[in-house]
Amino acid sequence: MTTPTPDTPPALLADRFKTLRYDEDERAVIVLDRRKYPFTTEFVTLRTVEEVAQAIENMTVQGGPPLAYVAGLGLAMAARDLDAAPARIGVYLERIARRLLATRPTADDLNHLIPAALQVAQDAIREGLDPFRPMLDFVNSEIQRGNEVSRLCGIHAARLVNDGDQVLTHCIAGAALCWMLWTAKNQGKKVHVIGCETRPYFQGARLTAASVQEMGIDFTLITDGMSAHLMSIGRIDKFICAADRITLDGHITNKVGTLTHAIAAHHFGKPFYVLGYDGPDPHTETGADIPIEERDPSEIFHARGETGTVRTAINGIEGYYPAFDITPPHLIGAICTDRGIFAPNAIRDYFTTQSSLS
Amino acid sequence: MTTPTPDTPPALLADRFKTLRYDEDERAVIVLDRRKYPFTTEFVTLRTVEEVAQAIENMTVQGGPPLAYVAGLGLAMAARDLDAAPARIGVYLERIARRLLATRPTADDLNHLIPAALQVAQDAIREGLDPFRPMLDFVNSEIQRGNEVSRLCGIHAARLVNDGDQVLTHCIAGAALCWMLWTAKNQGKKVHVIGCETRPYFQGARLTAASVQEMGIDFTLITDGMSAHLMSIGRIDKFICAADRITLDGHITNKVGTLTHAIAAHHFGKPFYVLGYDGPDPHTETGADIPIEERDPSEIFHARGETGTVRTAINGIEGYYPAFDITPPHLIGAICTDRGIFAPNAIRDYFTTQSSLS
Repeated sequence: MTTPTPDTPPALLADRFKTLRYDEDERAVIVLDRRKYPFTTEFVTLRTVEEVAQAIENMTVQGGPPLAYVAGLGLAMAARDLDAAPARIGVYLERIARRLLATRPTADDLNHLIPAALQVAQDAIREGLDPFRPMLDFVNSEIQRGNEVSRLCGIHAARLVNDGDQVLTHCIAGAALCWMLWTAKNQGKKVHVIGCETRPYFQGARLTAASVQEMGIDFTLITDGMSAHLMSIGRIDKFICAADRITLDGHITNKVGTLTHAIAAHHFGKPFYVLGYDGPDPHTETGADIPIEERDPSEIFHARGETGTVRTAINGIEGYYPAFDITPPHLIGAICTDRGIFAPNAIRDYFTTQSSLS
Repeated sequence: MTTPTPDTPPALLADRFKTLRYDEDERAVIVLDRRKYPFTTEFVTLRTVEEVAQAIENMTVQGGPPLAYVAGLGLAMAARDLDAAPARIGVYLERIARRLLATRPTADDLNHLIPAALQVAQDAIREGLDPFRPMLDFVNSEIQRGNEVSRLCGIHAARLVNDGDQVLTHCIAGAALCWMLWTAKNQGKKVHVIGCETRPYFQGARLTAASVQEMGIDFTLITDGMSAHLMSIGRIDKFICAADRITLDGHITNKVGTLTHAIAAHHFGKPFYVLGYDGPDPHTETGADIPIEERDPSEIFHARGETGTVRTAINGIEGYYPAFDITPPHLIGAICTDRGIFAPNAIRDYFTTQSSLS
């Protein structure tokens, strides 16, 4: 549970083990409250599966991989805490897994990790073992693998960044963004990050801004509606963000707003690159197969800031809050993964490619 | 100083006389605080030209025509309050006019109204008259004319709206939007308005939402990054907003974000119509001639809501806040004015056209 390499980027969010873990003494999942960071660096202690599920639903933990890890740790915690005959534990864990899988539908990481952790449990139970330890070890190995995927994806992506680049990003592109920027910096490339604040949760104004600042890289904040204007006056050279799910035919889904920026980038001839981590979801053929989460509209009627929450919209109106949008492959220049950089229409090749970091 | 017709839309912002005026007893300009409306309906009393200038700069009064009217009333107020020999008043008023003209550079209404009011003053002085009364009468006649322009523009624009339309709008398109929606409603057309909240000041979530609600028309709030997604799923049929300035070759400038929506609309084949009020600025040839105001970045580090202000961005970062962007004519379907509906490339015809409301 150490950082993946000695030269991990000096940003808290670059190493998942620093923001989420299972504490064996506390018998709890401990997770950074991403709604408050970096205004305050608060860790929340989750002692039940329901607390874990709600922490995912209420955005205490956000981002496809991090929330999947927290769910996996929650499932392992449940296996330890269940007071049941070994024969019944498998049935209970399946029920708990369904609760965790129902938290957020769009990102695919959760859909991979929870069934895999359940399989680990069932294998252990079949062998007459307590499933807790194998499950915890499995989820921790997945976090370790995720850190390595982020490192490789970011190092590959650094090739897409040139000295002097003004890079637009949206929401928080996570550990791979940190690795990309840190690698580029160590290669002597000076990069200026333009971050969209990302309403309603301001992940860009908080999480991305903090990560970039922690690495000593220039950051300029804009609101979500300004990207096209900055492209029109030459203040954005490329657009780079992450994806919550990538389809086999090269569609990507990401935090709502991404499509708006991608269309603007296409209009102005600026490349759009996707940090694709460990590649496409083998179970999702095309964009129409991605379920887009619609969240409580009251979240867009408010702004949460350092000193509390204020209501920013009038009462008595409707609101609509789709949390993600889908960008088609023809608007994407490349998808960068831990196994290299792919054209979006060739992203299926990910499955037959070995990582080739030179 | 009554409403322009008995069937004025029942929205406070549809009649400028209801939100700004010179009070002769108070010897002050009284103006609705648009930063707080509709959370509270507060009127601010401005007793000096400097207070008027600051109310324009700090967004107490916003929107090209309203802020121009307030500046004009401020100039008239100054003429009354100046304690100087008649021969000196003209010189003083010119200096005051320069202060008022320097408040906000992008919208053209201020650039028309202040020199015209100054001319009225100079004509009066030349005839040995006190310039106050002619100036006040002139500015009030301009407000009256602006109300009539809004009415005609909105009635023409109602032709661009069909029964069942889902109309995206951005920021606050003002009195003409009210007239368009109210006319369409009275024609039996059911329109659903999708309003972008419009960061950082949330004009969409407050001013537009309130205006639409006051007319009993459906309104759904979205954040500024959602427009492309809603177009992609068929929930937006057209995009209609105002313009702070229109050039002779059909470029328009409007609140930043407009270009983002216009590009998305073009991408998805949805028409973009501009409420152009009294037409292009005869002194601005093309988009490159429009000065884009850059405001204090601290305004995008915060969110102002019903119960106060919260800081939404971390400290120690840069921010960039261009208040407007420029949309070129090839992205615009039509510009609607008080004299009818023009193709953007033919907007020069405005000057040779008579209003022809049938």
